[in-house]
Amino acid sequence: MRAYELRDLQAGTPTLVERPTPSPAPGQVLVRMHATSLNYRDLLIARGSYRRGSPRLPLVPLSDGAGEVVQVGEGVTRFRTGDRVASAFFQRWVDGPPDESKTSSALGGDLDGVLAEYVVLEETGAVHIPDFLSFEEAATLPCAGVTAWVSLMALGKLQPGQTVLVLGTGGVSIFALQIAKHAGAKVIVTSSSDEKLARARQLGADAGINYREQPNWDDEVLKLTDGLGVDHVVEVGGAQTLPKSLRATREGGHVTLVGLLSGAPGDLEAAKGNDKGIRVDSVYVGSLRDFEEMNKAIERWQLCPVIDRVFPFEEAPEAYRYLESGRHFGKVVIRLLG
Amino acid sequence: MRAYELRDLQAGTPTLVERPTPSPAPGQVLVRMHATSLNYRDLLIARGSYRRGSPRLPLVPLSDGAGEVVQVGEGVTRFRTGDRVASAFFQRWVDGPPDESKTSSALGGDLDGVLAEYVVLEETGAVHIPDFLSFEEAATLPCAGVTAWVSLMALGKLQPGQTVLVLGTGGVSIFALQIAKHAGAKVIVTSSSDEKLARARQLGADAGINYREQPNWDDEVLKLTDGLGVDHVVEVGGAQTLPKSLRATREGGHVTLVGLLSGAPGDLEAAKGNDKGIRVDSVYVGSLRDFEEMNKAIERWQLCPVIDRVFPFEEAPEAYRYLESGRHFGKVVIRLLG
Amino acid sequence: MRAYELRDLQAGTPTLVERPTPSPAPGQVLVRMHATSLNYRDLLIARGSYRRGSPRLPLVPLSDGAGEVVQVGEGVTRFRTGDRVASAFFQRWVDGPPDESKTSSALGGDLDGVLAEYVVLEETGAVHIPDFLSFEEAATLPCAGVTAWVSLMALGKLQPGQTVLVLGTGGVSIFALQIAKHAGAKVIVTSSSDEKLARARQLGADAGINYREQPNWDDEVLKLTDGLGVDHVVEVGGAQTLPKSLRATREGGHVTLVGLLSGAPGDLEAAKGNDKGIRVDSVYVGSLRDFEEMNKAIERWQLCPVIDRVFPFEEAPEAYRYLESGRHFGKVVIRLLG
Amino acid sequence: MRAYELRDLQAGTPTLVERPTPSPAPGQVLVRMHATSLNYRDLLIARGSYRRGSPRLPLVPLSDGAGEVVQVGEGVTRFRTGDRVASAFFQRWVDGPPDESKTSSALGGDLDGVLAEYVVLEETGAVHIPDFLSFEEAATLPCAGVTAWVSLMALGKLQPGQTVLVLGTGGVSIFALQIAKHAGAKVIVTSSSDEKLARARQLGADAGINYREQPNWDDEVLKLTDGLGVDHVVEVGGAQTLPKSLRATREGGHVTLVGLLSGAPGDLEAAKGNDKGIRVDSVYVGSLRDFEEMNKAIERWQLCPVIDRVFPFEEAPEAYRYLESGRHFGKVVIRLLG
Repeated sequence: MRAYELRDLQAGTPTLVERPTPSPAPGQVLVRMHATSLNYRDLLIARGSYRRGSPRLPLVPLSDGAGEVVQVGEGVTRFRTGDRVASAFFQRWVDGPPDESKTSSALGGDLDGVLAEYVVLEETGAVHIPDFLSFEEAATLPCAGVTAWVSLMALGKLQPGQTVLVLGTGGVSIFALQIAKHAGAKVIVTSSSDEKLARARQLGADAGINYREQPNWDDEVLKLTDGLGVDHVVEVGGAQTLPKSLRATREGGHVTLVGLLSGAPGDLEAAKGNDKGIRVDSVYVGSLRDFEEMNKAIERWQLCPVIDRVFPFEEAPEAYRYLESGRHFGKVVIRLLG
Repeated sequence: MRAYELRDLQAGTPTLVERPTPSPAPGQVLVRMHATSLNYRDLLIARGSYRRGSPRLPLVPLSDGAGEVVQVGEGVTRFRTGDRVASAFFQRWVDGPPDESKTSSALGGDLDGVLAEYVVLEETGAVHIPDFLSFEEAATLPCAGVTAWVSLMALGKLQPGQTVLVLGTGGVSIFALQIAKHAGAKVIVTSSSDEKLARARQLGADAGINYREQPNWDDEVLKLTDGLGVDHVVEVGGAQTLPKSLRATREGGHVTLVGLLSGAPGDLEAAKGNDKGIRVDSVYVGSLRDFEEMNKAIERWQLCPVIDRVFPFEEAPEAYRYLESGRHFGKVVIRLLG
Repeated sequence: MRAYELRDLQAGTPTLVERPTPSPAPGQVLVRMHATSLNYRDLLIARGSYRRGSPRLPLVPLSDGAGEVVQVGEGVTRFRTGDRVASAFFQRWVDGPPDESKTSSALGGDLDGVLAEYVVLEETGAVHIPDFLSFEEAATLPCAGVTAWVSLMALGKLQPGQTVLVLGTGGVSIFALQIAKHAGAKVIVTSSSDEKLARARQLGADAGINYREQPNWDDEVLKLTDGLGVDHVVEVGGAQTLPKSLRATREGGHVTLVGLLSGAPGDLEAAKGNDKGIRVDSVYVGSLRDFEEMNKAIERWQLCPVIDRVFPFEEAPEAYRYLESGRHFGKVVIRLLG
Repeated sequence: MRAYELRDLQAGTPTLVERPTPSPAPGQVLVRMHATSLNYRDLLIARGSYRRGSPRLPLVPLSDGAGEVVQVGEGVTRFRTGDRVASAFFQRWVDGPPDESKTSSALGGDLDGVLAEYVVLEETGAVHIPDFLSFEEAATLPCAGVTAWVSLMALGKLQPGQTVLVLGTGGVSIFALQIAKHAGAKVIVTSSSDEKLARARQLGADAGINYREQPNWDDEVLKLTDGLGVDHVVEVGGAQTLPKSLRATREGGHVTLVGLLSGAPGDLEAAKGNDKGIRVDSVYVGSLRDFEEMNKAIERWQLCPVIDRVFPFEEAPEAYRYLESGRHFGKVVIRLLG
C-alpha cells in the first residue's frame, strides 16, 4: 500500500513510500482510509520542534482520519466490516481523567499515524461517525473537534447564555465557535483579519475583534461584557495572549490552554489572574468517551465542520505548506479516496 | 476603643488610634477581639503594593481575628452574646463559586479590618470556632487556613494516599501540610532552611527539599514520585516557582495558585505543563461554607494551628516587621486580650 | 391593598381580604405584583395535605409571581425602583446545596406568598426577568421553571444528543420538555391524552406514549432507545410511576424526583433499579443562582413558557379549581394588572 | 486443577470438580489463587435468586480473590510473573461511569469466577495489592471494599467531620465503618446484636443502635445529630429500611443503595425524603480506577479488613452456609494456599 513517512526532521514534510498492508491483531481493526486532516501539531512533529519530544523515525504522520473498516481482529465487538469510523487521537484512553498510560498512545507521534491507505486501529481507538458527515468532514474531528468539545463542554460545563472568547480562526477555534453557538452561548472571536472575522460572524460569532487594530483586545472584551469578562476562553495563543486572556475573564471563570497548537511558552500574569478564582485547564485532546459524546451532539445539532481546502493524497506535502502559511480558516484535509 | 489604622502607605505599618466603639446594624454582630493574625497580604496592603489596588484610607487593617460576640443586631439568628467566633475573610461570600459581588467584601482591604478592640461583622461574615482552640489559634484560620483547605479539599478533592507538594513554610503552606497529613496524603515540603525542613518533618512531612542546595528541586520531586510527579501542588511562590511546579506535577494533576501571598507575576511554562492535562486553580480564600466545613474537619482531627510568635496589641508594628523578615515558621499573632 | 388569604384548610381555596400595604425593611424590596401562577403544591397547601406540614394561618398563598419594584429598602443594591422582577421560591437560598436554613424560607408556605397586590421580597429572594417575557410568562418560572432547570441542567448535566423522559404535561414537565429540546436532547413524553401528546409534539417532543393505551410504557421507552433506556427522567408521578421510570432508565442514568407535585409516596423498585448505578436526586426547586442561570438560558433560547389559561385576580378560586381538574397543559396564571 | 462449579441452582452451594488449567490469551494473566471471599450476592446466585438473572451453568462462582501471577499473556504490560494481585469485580470497567458494556463483565456471574486454583483475568481486571495485606485480607476487597469506598468516597465525597450511618455489620458495612473513620467521619452503626455493636465500637463507631430494642432507630439517629440527620447513609437493607434511612438523612444529604446485598425491593418514602434534596445513588461496585484509588488509601491508612472466619478450600460449601446463617461480623474467606 501507499503511505507517507517522516524520515528525517529536516524536510518538514513527509515522503510517499510503499509499505506492506498491515493486518489487525486481536482487538484491532483494519481501516481503509478515505480522508485525513492536518493539525498544527503535525507541522511541529515534522520539524522536530514538538515539545513532547522527537518521534522515532520513520513515522507515519497524522492523528486524524476517517474511513471504512475492512477487517476486524479476533474478539472485536464494537465494529464490523463496512462500518464508517474515525480514528481516536489516543488509542488507549477510553474514559476518565488522563494519565501517562493513556496519553502515551497518540497517533502520528507515539504510534504510527493515519496518512496511509490502510491503518490498523485499536478497538478502543476508533469511533463510529455520524451518518450525515462525509469522510472528509469526519476526518477533522479527532484532534481539533474533541479538543474544542472537551474545553467547553466536558471541562467548561458551558451553560446557555454564557459568553465564550475564542482566539483566532484555526481548527480548534472554529470548532469552539460552532460548539459554543449550538450550546446557546455568545461568542467573541479575535483575528488579525477582517475577512476572517466576517466569516466567523457568518458562523454565528456575536462579536469580532481585530487584534491588529486593537492590540488591547482585552479591553474590548471587557467592554463587550459590561466590564465583567467572559465565562470561558479557549486559549490557543500561548505566551503572547494568556495574560490578556486572563484579564478578559470574569471572576470565577474558566480558561483552557490548548497547548498542542503552540510551540511557545505562555505566561500566567499572576498579577491580574491570580486572585480572581479562575480555573485554568490544560487540554490534551480527550478520551474515546468524550469523542462519542461529542458525536451525539454533532448529530443532534447537525454541526458541519468547516473545511478550508481539500488536497489529494499525492499532494500531502502541499497541504503541510498550506497549513503553515496560516491562510486557512477551518480545517485542511487530505483525501485518499472518493 | 483602641484600634490601628493605616493612614498613609509610606510607613508600611499601622498607627494606634482612638475610635468610637461601633454598634451592630440589623444583621450584624459586635465582637470583642481577643486575637488577630497577620498574612503577607497585610504587608502588601500596608505598603501600597497590593495588586487589588490601594485601599481608601484610613483603613483598619487585617482580615483575621477571633473574639467574643458582645452584642447582636436585629434579626441575627446565627449568633448569640457570648459566642466564640472568628471573622470570615469575606463578609458576603456565603456559598457557591466566587463572583465580584462576593469577593468585594474582604476585611482589611475592601472593608475595615479586625485590628481593633471591637469589630462589627456581618452575620454572614463570622463563624463559630472549635472549643478546643484558643482565640490565638482560631485567629490564624480565616485567610491562611481556609486558603489551604479550599486548595486541597474543596478544589483539589484530595484523596488518601495521594502526594502533595508544599512550597515553603509560611502560613498557608504549614496549614496545607497539616491538612494533607490528616487527610492521609504524603507531603513533600521545600524550604531554603534545613532547620525549617526539620520542623516540617516533625509536623509529618514525608520528605523535605532544600531548594538552595538543590535548585532543580523539580527533579528531586520527580525522583521521590517514581518519575510521575505529585498529585497536587499548593503554589505560593509565583513567577519563580510555577514552571518547576508544573514540571513536578503528574499528568492530570492539580495546582493551586495562591496569589495573595506573592506580589510577583508567575509564568506558566506551557512547554512542559500545557499538554499534561493539568488543572490550575487560582484561589482567593473561600466562602463561609468552606470555613465551616474546615472547622468540622479541624475539630475532628484536633488540628492545632502552628503559631510562631505572639505579639501584644501595643507591638503590632513589630509584628508586621517580624513577618516581613521571613524568619517565621507558621503564623504570627497579635493578642488583644487574655 | 387587596390580597388573598388561606384562613382555614377546609375550603381548599383562598379568600379575598383587605390588608395594609407592607413596607420594605432594610435589605428588602416592595413589588407591585402583575401576575402570579399556580403550582400543584398550592392546592395541597390549601387543602392541608402538604407534607411539609400545615402552614400557620392566615397565609397569603402562592410562591410564583412577577411584578415591578416600587420601593427599595435601605442597603439594597441589586434592585432599583422600576425593575421588572420575579419572586424566588426561597427567600434565603442564594447559592450552593440546600440545607435547612435555606429551604425554610419558601413563599406561600413558610412565609406569606405573592397572591396580593403588593409583596415584600428579600433582596436575595427576587430576580430580574428577561425583557422579552411578559409578566404573565415570567410568573410561571419560580417553581416549575427552576425545578425543571435544576433537574436537567444543574443536577442532570444534560448533554446534547441525550434522551429525556418526561412524565405527563403539567407545569414542570412542559418546562422540562422545552429546556431539553433547546439543550439538544431528544424527548419522550407520556400522557393519558392523545391530544396532549400532539401538543407536546408541537413543542418538539420526539415521541409520545399514551400510558392509558400502553400501561407498560416502560417497555415502549426501552424500544425507543434500542433497549438501553433514557439518560434522564424527570419523575413527577411518585408511587405509581417510579418503578417503571427506573426500568426505563439506562445503566448509569439519572432520575429526578419532583416531590412537590405529588402527595403520594413513591416506591423505589430496587429489584430493577438498584444495581444499574442510577442516580436519583430529589429536587426541591433551587437557589437564586439557579434561577439566574436559567434566565440567561431562557433569554438566549427565547424560550416562551406555555400558559394554558389566565384568570383575573378576582377569580383566583376558579384558577385553583381549574388546576385541580387536571385539564390544563402548561401553566395556570392569575393576572393582577395589565 | 481443582475448581468449584455451580451445576444447578437447587443445591445452593458449589461442587468441587476437576478442570483443565487455563492459559492466558493476549492481554490476560494467569493467577494462582491463594484466597477468595464470599459476598451475599454469591448466595443469591447459587440459589438462582439473583436479580440480574440466572447465570449460564456450569459456572465457577465468586468474584473476589487474591493470588500470584504465574503467567502473563502477550502484550501485557501492567503485570509480571510473581506479582501479588486481586481480581477486579468487573473485568472491563477501567474508568468513568458505568455502562452496559462495562458492567456485563462481572466475575462469578457474567463470567466464570475465582473459586479455582488457577484463574485467568483480563489485564484490566486485576490490581496490585498492598504489601502489608495478606492474601486472605486482599481477597475481601474487590466487591465489599470497593462498594464501600465508592459509596462514601467516590460518590459521597465524604468530608472529615461529617456523620455516616451504616446499617448492620456485614462486609460492606464494616468496610464503610473503617473507611469513614479513617477519613475523619463520625459513624453510627445499627445492629440487632449488642455484641456486634460492641465490636463495631472497638473498630471506632461513635454510636450504636440496636434496632431490635429501638425499632424507631431513625428517631435515635436524629437525636444523635441534633435533629438534623446524617450526611451519608450506606443503605444495604432495602425495602425495610430505606424510608427510615431517608428520614434519618439531613437535607441535601446522600444515600447509597447497595443493591447487591438484598434481594428485596426497597421503598422510597417520598413523603419524607422527596423534598429534602437528598441524592440517592445506587452502587454496583466500581471501576478498576476506584479499586486502585482505594488501595492507595488502604495502604496509607494501614486499614486491615475484618475477617470473621477462614475456611479451607475443601469446605467451601460450609463457608456458604456460614455466611447464610448471618452470624458473621466482617468477611468470610476461603483459603486455597498458604
